[in-house]
Order: sequence, then structure tokens, then C-alpha cells
Amino acid sequence: MNGFELDQRLAGDTLPVTMLESGPLLVMNDRRWPWLILVPAFAGAVELHELDADAARRIHQETDLVAAALKRVTNCTKINTGALGNMVRQLHIHIVARSEGDANWPGPVWGYGARVPYETGDAHQFADRIKAALER
Amino acid sequence: MNGFELDQRLAGDTLPVTMLESGPLLVMNDRRWPWLILVPAFAGAVELHELDADAARRIHQETDLVAAALKRVTNCTKINTGALGNMVRQLHIHIVARSEGDANWPGPVWGYGARVPYETGDAHQFADRIKAALER
Repeated sequence: MNGFELDQRLAGDTLPVTMLESGPLLVMNDRRWPWLILVPAFAGAVELHELDADAARRIHQETDLVAAALKRVTNCTKINTGALGNMVRQLHIHIVARSEGDANWPGPVWGYGARVPYETGDAHQFADRIKAALER
Repeated sequence: MNGFELDQRLAGDTLPVTMLESGPLLVMNDRRWPWLILVPAFAGAVELHELDADAARRIHQETDLVAAALKRVTNCTKINTGALGNMVRQLHIHIVARSEGDANWPGPVWGYGARVPYETGDAHQFADRIKAALER
């Protein structure tokens, strides 16, 4: 993985779910929304369009697989995906399950209020359901 | 294009840039940020992960090409991409050029304040620069 290290802020805000081909899949420690983050394990990567075509294709494919798993697990109204990186520059892709009436619906999750951490065990339970859905 | 019609709200908020293989590329009529929207021309499409693999791959590839063109044209700090669809359910992908100190930086563009339309001609000038960058 060529010197890749997970950004400290991402590490502090999340818990690990599993390792995908592209890199670690994380769950945001915020129980307001079921929120996953895929971090392509390329040292120094910032913009998806700057990666080589094979790497970009794999990341997009895995993003879609994670989105499908998240939708099956949550039965949400709409998947929201985004690659912003205005605060944490390390390339990372948000995959979030949105449901009508959730916090800030129909607005975005980014920049809205303060993170509400999971109760002990709940994030791991959610992570286990995602892992199982990805293995189907 | 199998009965595809551009959503009325998307049509009202944007101006056309060009037609890509996946579908129309639009510019959001909001001069606060250089903001493009790709609308895959599949009637009834809502979630990218529900499209067939070839269509999804082409959409992702074109999103990355548009992002690269937008970055060359604007020399922005960071590209923000997102597929939300909480308000307009028709599948559409936002590709936005963000620069330090722009409106709501480093927060998201979605849901922030009111759209500020371009002055006459400015949106077309921007669209022409994007088209030229895509043809390079």
C-alpha cells in the first residue's frame, strides 16, 4: 500500500468495517445516519480523477457495491454519495443512507450539527451487518 | 434514450453545456460556485448502483473526465462530487469546483442559501470553456 496511512481525523471519527480491494471501509461514528466511508489506500491521493484509470474504476465499482449493501441493510429512501475533501484532504468517499425525516433531511449530512457517537456495541453491530451484506 | 426526459426542476435551475455519451451535462445557474451536473439519460434511473455495470462504468468515467476539465478551467482547490437526489429523485451527479474562501467553504454547496444566477452571457462563457477543456 505504498506508505498509505489513514488520516488522523478520519481515524478519530470512525470505526473500521472491513478491508476492501481499494482500501479500508469505515463507519462514521455518528448514529444520526448510517454512514460509511471508503478510503482508497493510495498515499497522497486527493482527487479521484487524478488516479490511474484502473484504480479509479475499482474504487467506483466498490463504491457502488457498498452503496447497494447499505441500501439492502437500511432500506433507506436514498443513498447519498460524495467525495468532498475540503476539510480532510486525503481521498475518501462518503456513502450515506438517507431516510425521509432524518436529521437535516432533505439537506446534506456534511457540515450539519455535531456528531452523535453510537452507544457501545451499536456501531459494531451495524458494521457486522454491512460486512455480511457485502459477502452475499 | 428510451423515454428519458430531464426533470423540470433540474431544467429550470441550469443551462445546457453539452451532450456526453451518458447524457446531458448542465451548468447550475448559480455563480457562487462553478458547478456542473451530469444527468445520465436513463428513464427512471434513481440510484447509480442500480444501473447495469457498463452504464455505471461509463457514467463514472465521464464524471472523472468532467472533474478533470473543471479543475483545469478553474484551477480550484478541490473538486466536490456528489450524488444526493433527496429533492430531485432523477439520477444526477454534481461536480463542483471549490476554492478556499468561497461561499460556505469548507462546508458543502448543497442546501446553502439561495442560488445567485449568472449575469447574461457569463454562464455561456463558462460552458464554452468547459466544452473546450473536454475536447482537449
